[in-house]
Amino acid sequence: MTTTIPSPSPLSEFSLIDRFFARATRQGEHVTLGIGDDCALLRPPAGEQLAISTDMLVEGRHFFADADPRALGHKTLAVNLSDLAAMGARPMGFTLALALPDSDPAWLAPFAQGLSALADRYACPLVGGDTTRGPRNLCVTVFGSVPGPQALRRDAARPGDDIWVSGTLGDARLALGALRGEWSLHPDDLALARRAMDWPEPQIALGLALRGVARAALDVSDGLLGDLGHILERSNMSAQVNVDDLPRSALLASQTREIQRLCTLAGGDDYQLCFCADSAQRPRIAAIGDELGIRLTRIGTIAFPDARRTMLHLHDKTGAAVAADYKSFDHFQ
Amino acid sequence: MTTTIPSPSPLSEFSLIDRFFARATRQGEHVTLGIGDDCALLRPPAGEQLAISTDMLVEGRHFFADADPRALGHKTLAVNLSDLAAMGARPMGFTLALALPDSDPAWLAPFAQGLSALADRYACPLVGGDTTRGPRNLCVTVFGSVPGPQALRRDAARPGDDIWVSGTLGDARLALGALRGEWSLHPDDLALARRAMDWPEPQIALGLALRGVARAALDVSDGLLGDLGHILERSNMSAQVNVDDLPRSALLASQTREIQRLCTLAGGDDYQLCFCADSAQRPRIAAIGDELGIRLTRIGTIAFPDARRTMLHLHDKTGAAVAADYKSFDHFQ
Repeated sequence: MTTTIPSPSPLSEFSLIDRFFARATRQGEHVTLGIGDDCALLRPPAGEQLAISTDMLVEGRHFFADADPRALGHKTLAVNLSDLAAMGARPMGFTLALALPDSDPAWLAPFAQGLSALADRYACPLVGGDTTRGPRNLCVTVFGSVPGPQALRRDAARPGDDIWVSGTLGDARLALGALRGEWSLHPDDLALARRAMDWPEPQIALGLALRGVARAALDVSDGLLGDLGHILERSNMSAQVNVDDLPRSALLASQTREIQRLCTLAGGDDYQLCFCADSAQRPRIAAIGDELGIRLTRIGTIAFPDARRTMLHLHDKTGAAVAADYKSFDHFQ
Repeated sequence: MTTTIPSPSPLSEFSLIDRFFARATRQGEHVTLGIGDDCALLRPPAGEQLAISTDMLVEGRHFFADADPRALGHKTLAVNLSDLAAMGARPMGFTLALALPDSDPAWLAPFAQGLSALADRYACPLVGGDTTRGPRNLCVTVFGSVPGPQALRRDAARPGDDIWVSGTLGDARLALGALRGEWSLHPDDLALARRAMDWPEPQIALGLALRGVARAALDVSDGLLGDLGHILERSNMSAQVNVDDLPRSALLASQTREIQRLCTLAGGDDYQLCFCADSAQRPRIAAIGDELGIRLTRIGTIAFPDARRTMLHLHDKTGAAVAADYKSFDHFQ
């Protein structure tokens, strides 16, 4: 274990952040001390809990080497904000650790712009960071606040709860499949689907609105089947889901049934919220969808586990069973 | 930008953490919800501020590919805890994002052991994580708490303050130089110096004891000259430092004067605290050193900047000026 050769300027890490990320470091209302000290200091709202999530994006694994750096900046923060949304937490700030092969301004400037625009929009300033040379790797840790009892945990689903999904599922996977050559799309359609893949929008406003309304929630990042499975496992519940009710774009709805099912059930990269709520909350949830202009779709029901302890029962609109053999994403399988 | 192929088990990321890091995830007194949800939930002490720091360690840059994984686990967390110490913050928890070329138990098990032992010792549990395949990269973000007015910031040094350093400086750099062939050491001496490099001890207890006693502080991670420079720059002050007063081990004191100066002034990887305090605090600081069994050495004095705005004036025990042309570490120079 070692460090590298001592080298000329002790200030250029700060300079790099000053130069490219100044817009992102504007101090938010919760930030007492931002970048430039050993630690950032944040003042969480009195009585609230701190919600924390971290995600690491690796070149060649989570993004292509030639990915649009502006979109990558956006997505790097978006996937973390999505975790706050899924908890019903309000963003307070984030740290960014970057390994980069070089400090090329042609990459850093648009990356910082994409990231800063989203940070601005959610009043979530960059409060600390680390930069180093190495294979490109982007690690964000994000901090939010939530009144403890209102946090949307995965372990809180109850029998009879409705299962809901926001927005539409599957467009990011539709784009990925086309880029990989699994199927083909007209270039205009691919551009549309890529937008879902490259510029996901974290559902922060929805997460906040669901405090005290939803019981359990998570964001669909690895595919609905696997992610809903986390709620079922943590809550020790089973679920019935109608695969024909899964919300999808007109573009995805125009594909073959196999593609539609693969993309909606096991797509990944959706960053929509999947949440469980008492059926008495239906009018309130409909009102939230109207207020926020977000499509909210009821896709199934939570139940006690059955004798065989099959957690997830899929069926189509005719009531016929659908095999749940679509697999979601895992990095070490 | 893309994700990778959907693959079999949605649970093996959790399994990897369950299998190797269970000891580190034991919930601490501030942890309401640990690993397994979209976010961890922490409850900071009422009225205290949150101190946050992040560090990224890259194979080939911060550690050798064949580094002892147990030492690496220790050091990965230690360098972050050292930032909390430098702020006078008490550890609450940390997140760990790992990119690994494979999930080899022969590496993961000792890495997790080294990390967990230190996490245990400082009651600083692992509260969240992310694992992915990629070139080896270890990113820790650490959280602590500190009453806001007692935080040891870099911008608080005042004219007349004593400058202090804990422990000894330079042994890590002495080991590095020997490993690089810059000089040679007897194998027993190298083993001694390597211990400083591979197993740094974060000065948490000292940081806590210095609340309300020291004004400014930081940890010496990139070399004393560069790090003290951060205090001077942020505080808009200058400093006089006697290079013959810099504390060093008997091993380092037996080397040439050039090696001693290089290692103490621009060594890096020391993780000792450098702090500034009113001279009226000398008896209290001596008592803290005695209580904690830590050597605390007065190395110089803070002053207003001079007309030429030279921030750092080095001299030896005869009063002769010493050139401050030792450079500390920066990743992009």
